[in-house]
Amino acid sequence: MDKKTTKRQELVIIGGGAVGMAVATHTKRHGDYSVTVISKDAYTAYSQCGMPFVLGGEIKDFDALIVKKPDFFKHMGINVKLNTTVDAIDLDSKIIHVKDRILPFDKLVIATGSYPNIPGNIKSDIRLDNVFTLRTLSDGINIQNSLETATNLALIGGGSIGVEIAASVSKRGINTTLVNRNNSLLSHSIDPEMADIVRAYLVSIGVNVITDTAPTSINGTTKVGSVTIDGTDIPADIVIISTGVVPDTSLAQDAGIEIGISGGIVTNGQLRVKVGNTFHPDVFSGGECAQVYNFITGEPFVNQLGSNARRMAAVIGNNLCGTPSNFGPTINPWVCIVGDLQVGSVGLTSNIAKRSGKKVITGMSKGLTRAGYYPEGSQIYIKLIFNDRYLVGAQIISGEGVKERIDGLSFAIKKKMTIDEMQDIETCYAPPVSMLVDPIMYAIEDAHKKFQEMKISSRSTGHTEKEADR
Amino acid sequence: MDKKTTKRQELVIIGGGAVGMAVATHTKRHGDYSVTVISKDAYTAYSQCGMPFVLGGEIKDFDALIVKKPDFFKHMGINVKLNTTVDAIDLDSKIIHVKDRILPFDKLVIATGSYPNIPGNIKSDIRLDNVFTLRTLSDGINIQNSLETATNLALIGGGSIGVEIAASVSKRGINTTLVNRNNSLLSHSIDPEMADIVRAYLVSIGVNVITDTAPTSINGTTKVGSVTIDGTDIPADIVIISTGVVPDTSLAQDAGIEIGISGGIVTNGQLRVKVGNTFHPDVFSGGECAQVYNFITGEPFVNQLGSNARRMAAVIGNNLCGTPSNFGPTINPWVCIVGDLQVGSVGLTSNIAKRSGKKVITGMSKGLTRAGYYPEGSQIYIKLIFNDRYLVGAQIISGEGVKERIDGLSFAIKKKMTIDEMQDIETCYAPPVSMLVDPIMYAIEDAHKKFQEMKISSRSTGHTEKEADR
Repeated sequence: MDKKTTKRQELVIIGGGAVGMAVATHTKRHGDYSVTVISKDAYTAYSQCGMPFVLGGEIKDFDALIVKKPDFFKHMGINVKLNTTVDAIDLDSKIIHVKDRILPFDKLVIATGSYPNIPGNIKSDIRLDNVFTLRTLSDGINIQNSLETATNLALIGGGSIGVEIAASVSKRGINTTLVNRNNSLLSHSIDPEMADIVRAYLVSIGVNVITDTAPTSINGTTKVGSVTIDGTDIPADIVIISTGVVPDTSLAQDAGIEIGISGGIVTNGQLRVKVGNTFHPDVFSGGECAQVYNFITGEPFVNQLGSNARRMAAVIGNNLCGTPSNFGPTINPWVCIVGDLQVGSVGLTSNIAKRSGKKVITGMSKGLTRAGYYPEGSQIYIKLIFNDRYLVGAQIISGEGVKERIDGLSFAIKKKMTIDEMQDIETCYAPPVSMLVDPIMYAIEDAHKKFQEMKISSRSTGHTEKEADR
Repeated sequence: MDKKTTKRQELVIIGGGAVGMAVATHTKRHGDYSVTVISKDAYTAYSQCGMPFVLGGEIKDFDALIVKKPDFFKHMGINVKLNTTVDAIDLDSKIIHVKDRILPFDKLVIATGSYPNIPGNIKSDIRLDNVFTLRTLSDGINIQNSLETATNLALIGGGSIGVEIAASVSKRGINTTLVNRNNSLLSHSIDPEMADIVRAYLVSIGVNVITDTAPTSINGTTKVGSVTIDGTDIPADIVIISTGVVPDTSLAQDAGIEIGISGGIVTNGQLRVKVGNTFHPDVFSGGECAQVYNFITGEPFVNQLGSNARRMAAVIGNNLCGTPSNFGPTINPWVCIVGDLQVGSVGLTSNIAKRSGKKVITGMSKGLTRAGYYPEGSQIYIKLIFNDRYLVGAQIISGEGVKERIDGLSFAIKKKMTIDEMQDIETCYAPPVSMLVDPIMYAIEDAHKKFQEMKISSRSTGHTEKEADR
């Protein structure tokens, strides 16, 4: 009725990544906004997480990763401005500055993501040809082109992207070195004894894994030729640096929006940003630039998972369209594909729990994903982490069925399942897909035994709680 | 110290199936018993659930299914008597009668399992050659031998075993007919709209599926030649009847042990059997002959899952070895492998919930098991069933990842997760193993929408709760 006379509200979204594009389509479908997305990048609506698998050849080309073509957004009436940098946000006047122009907004979403964190000592070396980071589709395409003629690849950083690329690319017959500052690979997500399994696998497929050290320089004149690690020059005609990311918050900070101790933009449950003492009713932030909270420790952090980005987009979209919605503290279920291995985790690792001052009891098991007599099963390694009898973390490595198991344990963590309740869980069985007794039962049994021992030991020594981690 | 002078307690186990053998090894490891297992069967410690996959050729021979050879038990000091029938149990004298001999016991486990339920009208036809049921390893070997020269197979009964064999055997190029009395296949485990997916798959691989009817006769002189269904003779040189099982309780009943309304031996949480008004301290029962309880409805039933048999064995074993242990009411997570399809369920189906007088709200979704652009993913169909806002059932069909998802949803059902909590679950993501938004989220959204509609509709009509099933 009033629609014709009421001017549509202007929604401006800064960032064309997982959060930005999902908020754009959500609000177009469920709200009545004029929607503009502004992205620095040359591409949008592509799967960042798919890039390692194009490099490995599992996915045929980068074009396949563009899940929605520009036409899709045009047809929806979403105005997408690519290759465009926002210069400033003016919250008082509700405008953003783009070059010489200004753009008014009624609602604003800051989804600026993150940029690569390059260690200081090699920061200047990234000017060399064939030294890359892998953040954008353009990065991926450039790496792919260089890999065509490459013989030696050096990967700096042993997080998800580093290990995924290491496994994918070494299959192409390229000599691959992976160097990681931490003693243990994937140290944000899994504990050392689980990381050892990943390391052994990488070594078995020919990756040169070097840990507990970092390159002192990347060498070359115009093009990279080697990387110096512990005084040795390791030949490298391609280098990919994936040593973490930094939230891209400068625009927000300059606009007077609060930045948290995690380095991300402070948000409340509705993902509204904080300005002064209040959360701004019209400005939201989500994704890798926003600060969220850990479900178990309550600590603020910045989340880098695509799955969480997508959930944050739904929360922002709902709040923009009149359906109050909350993004609760998260347990960060995560999975990463390292060649033939699937590696997953959720909640806290033992190491991270201990750093938060939590005493942990762990349960470990090793089993098979199918009946012993059924062909093509895979070994499976399970670690469960308990604190105060509650399940607070899980780590699984296997050739199959990891993602779904981590999801299931995520339900258990979020519903605050205890060791006692876990002893009573039920699992299903058919020889082609499982052992009669699921290996998780043995991990539960192992943890339970340690709880029992702790009880006995604290009784006999008079101590209260004793750490019984392994 | 006293060991030499104290005579070991005699534990007698009747039945050499999943429960019997697991109790035997458990008590040998953790207790101090002289253990005797008596089995009617010619083989023991083999995987019954693996048999359909030997017939299909996925597993090379029946010998592979014998997970523990007789020597294993001999070395453990377990006395296994095969091909041996127990004639009677005398609880007062604590002896069992075997032929002309008597065997004293201090503790007794009745794990007699079940026998095939043959419909009355074809009961006499099973004397024909090549008419089989598939219960024991001997059955499996006989079927395998007959299949070598078979052209036409008729399967009577569309439960797990029927559909698993249908899919497995039709791949061998044998004309396969599957006939089911119920309109819907696998009707104990999944609802009709999910069963339609299984049916369509079976038809697509060439199985002749006939439902809502039953054979009137199995025809032949010495060897079977055809099966008459709805007046038509369907050629069959092999017939396998899998129309359910009946708990084998005659020994128990004759001994004065109470049989429940489910047809199974009445047990308490510790799996002790009931005699008069009390549960017998020294006599246990588990597996397909014992009555247990449904977690959601509280109703007694007899459980036919190998996974539950194994759990019951652990409970009996623990109770025999001085660790009090309980077998709680069960939610029956189940998975069955129908060729390339994995079909799983847990808790109540919509149909069964309705028969128990429960109003249900369901959520359905269809998605993929991998990112759309990642090769070799599979379609996945998910159905969630809620009652009073609680998750009470789930059904999943896909080419991969079904067992683990059903297990995860089992945790959720046992922890009494509500629709509101489920909206807040977190799932992990990597393109080779999942979509960015897990298909389960869409099933949750679908159910949530119906809860909302129900609320609105009950407000506007003044009615309390409205069934909004689909």
